[in-house]
Amino acid sequence: MKRELFFESGISKELLNQGYDALARELRGGDVGYYLLPESIENREVIHSFCKSYDLEKIKNVVVIGIGGSSLGTKAIDYMLSHTKNRNDKNLIFMENVDPNEIERNMRDVLFEESIFIMISKSGSTIETTSSVKYLMSKYQLSFEMEKFQQHFICITDKGSPLDAFASDFNLKTFYLPLNVGGRFSVFSAVGLLPLAILGYDIDAMLDGAYELKKSFFDRRENSLVEKAYHYAINDDIMPINVLFSYTSSFKYFNDWYVQLWGESLGKYNRDKERVGLTPIGIVGSVDQHSFLQLVIEGPINKSMTMIKLKDFDNDLTIPNISIPHLEKTDYINNNKFSTLINAQCDATMQSIMEQGIDVDRIEIDRLSEKSVGEMIFYYELLTSLTGHFLDVNTYDQPGVELGKVILKESFEKEIA
Amino acid sequence: MKRELFFESGISKELLNQGYDALARELRGGDVGYYLLPESIENREVIHSFCKSYDLEKIKNVVVIGIGGSSLGTKAIDYMLSHTKNRNDKNLIFMENVDPNEIERNMRDVLFEESIFIMISKSGSTIETTSSVKYLMSKYQLSFEMEKFQQHFICITDKGSPLDAFASDFNLKTFYLPLNVGGRFSVFSAVGLLPLAILGYDIDAMLDGAYELKKSFFDRRENSLVEKAYHYAINDDIMPINVLFSYTSSFKYFNDWYVQLWGESLGKYNRDKERVGLTPIGIVGSVDQHSFLQLVIEGPINKSMTMIKLKDFDNDLTIPNISIPHLEKTDYINNNKFSTLINAQCDATMQSIMEQGIDVDRIEIDRLSEKSVGEMIFYYELLTSLTGHFLDVNTYDQPGVELGKVILKESFEKEIA
Repeated sequence: MKRELFFESGISKELLNQGYDALARELRGGDVGYYLLPESIENREVIHSFCKSYDLEKIKNVVVIGIGGSSLGTKAIDYMLSHTKNRNDKNLIFMENVDPNEIERNMRDVLFEESIFIMISKSGSTIETTSSVKYLMSKYQLSFEMEKFQQHFICITDKGSPLDAFASDFNLKTFYLPLNVGGRFSVFSAVGLLPLAILGYDIDAMLDGAYELKKSFFDRRENSLVEKAYHYAINDDIMPINVLFSYTSSFKYFNDWYVQLWGESLGKYNRDKERVGLTPIGIVGSVDQHSFLQLVIEGPINKSMTMIKLKDFDNDLTIPNISIPHLEKTDYINNNKFSTLINAQCDATMQSIMEQGIDVDRIEIDRLSEKSVGEMIFYYELLTSLTGHFLDVNTYDQPGVELGKVILKESFEKEIA
Repeated sequence: MKRELFFESGISKELLNQGYDALARELRGGDVGYYLLPESIENREVIHSFCKSYDLEKIKNVVVIGIGGSSLGTKAIDYMLSHTKNRNDKNLIFMENVDPNEIERNMRDVLFEESIFIMISKSGSTIETTSSVKYLMSKYQLSFEMEKFQQHFICITDKGSPLDAFASDFNLKTFYLPLNVGGRFSVFSAVGLLPLAILGYDIDAMLDGAYELKKSFFDRRENSLVEKAYHYAINDDIMPINVLFSYTSSFKYFNDWYVQLWGESLGKYNRDKERVGLTPIGIVGSVDQHSFLQLVIEGPINKSMTMIKLKDFDNDLTIPNISIPHLEKTDYINNNKFSTLINAQCDATMQSIMEQGIDVDRIEIDRLSEKSVGEMIFYYELLTSLTGHFLDVNTYDQPGVELGKVILKESFEKEIA
């Protein structure tokens, strides 16, 4: 994973060290738990031992019941690696939204006996998640006491949460989220690792990749990370939008994971009680050259652009040497690999963006593997923590979403009263 | 379809009339063709007669080879209506990106004899589209002269384009795009109508819906449309981002269609040679309450929010009256329909957003049908034209994407030289 900034951050030595120090303090302080996930041996072992003991052969569907931080990381990683050799052929299905047509569309062909249901919620009181579980109980005519409920349902939650109390009353297999790990930083806890291990991925390699990046950061060899965070934070007024332009469809859901991580971590009142925040946008190349690029090139210069380039697609698919009469204009690409085309498009687009004076950086990934995905995820988590430091916000809370929940609940209670 | 603005645009009577007049002038002037698509009888008839004459029974896959404006509208409409009664069970597959892993993932199980391939390009020189066609010719070992190539390939292009010349040389069935209709405004030409008709949708009802909105606009009964466009345009500096918050998963790809329409139409140099533009973002409720809402509520006030609410989901799926021990806190929702929950979430979120002083408007759709989708699409097309008028840009071109194409071509020619 190669990281290059094509802009000058102008950060001082002092501020650079402040960035490193801030995260080192968070790590030592113990309030921010995600830093410790890459080397948590316990974490790996409980998952490995579950996968060994459970009869996964009969499982065709892995159904994740969770929303936001409980689903986006798993979805991102699975889509990044779904074409790689370790992935088995089980279906990964998410129950997230409470749109009834979506629920029925997703669950139509899911047979209970062939499925494992992973209910993920820090507290258990997420309305979408409990409603989905109730739907499943009715769909499959289950009762909590039944052995088959207990065999097919797994909980991932905080120790001591209401969901934990429920799971322990009914003897459900339960994995814990460390209390100091928030949803959007939880993909390297059981939240992501359990479903990913069931799908066949090498979670150890994933965590090793994350660990490598972590070590490299805390050994103070990641100046470009600190510079980038600083640059984004101090330019939040003139450059309020940060675009991730991923040149592979495999990053489609990584973009969504990034949007949550970035938006929810950084958009809030800072410690001076001012509204701050940076707006994330994720797009995919080359397709979005045909939808979003015009605005980037000629619209207001209010966006940073991060190009993600995958060097080796592990795929030799080649554009055949066929000349379509009257369309010979595009024959210059014949005999090249599709991956050569998409990478050349990435380079050409980057150049055309840079010519506008837009701040660009590039992340080049050698190939998609558990290890590189682990690095990538941890890179963005660290970048988010650093940017939060420079914006002077609490990166790890989300107080702004509570009001809507209160209004929602009141609206139903009013109806009953 | 009910449209309500919860902000004051302060537009004068004169500017309001200017908005109407500008579009009326475009309509009469003949350079902007999309206005005429809803009532184009010829359009409907060639498609109906094709569907009658072609043996669609044997077709299992409808493969659209096209990118940007050639794919986004069809994808949007199909996903909005995929649960409705007219939709048959054919698969709709897109060949858009040149990511080789994506191509293989999408095309793995597509058998030639069961498929119809619709190649869409205004000129035919879109590199992604021609490369995809070459891939298909090699995958299925086709030659242009073969009857089976001619039977299974259809072209949609500009009359007189290189693609038209190719199609006529080899006797391919061809549909024309009116020359004055650009890609992102083309969904009601054969570009969208042909695949949608093959999938069973009632394209006449769709066009009737669009026509109704058109008529209502040109009869000057759509002040809220003009007000909204004006408000967005004059506040482009303090409110550079326009978020569409759709409270149904069915709008997932409508959001993508909106992003292209809005971004590519409005992001460019205005007639005073200044960079202008508005950045579109599409999100889906309630899921994105768990990812994007925090930033909206507590971050900088630099976004307008449009809530899309679907009144009737045509789906009575109900949250069962089950109490999960220890999780009784969420029982207040029991016995309500899932659609009641998602709509109450929409209302609660909207209220919590409005309490921050953010400019909000709401579009309420009675139910998803060909007709309402037609209205919705045309509403956004008109809104885009109006906003383009007030931003003083050429809404219908996209000069900014050319540079990247030139650099791309040069990079390959350099290699050969």
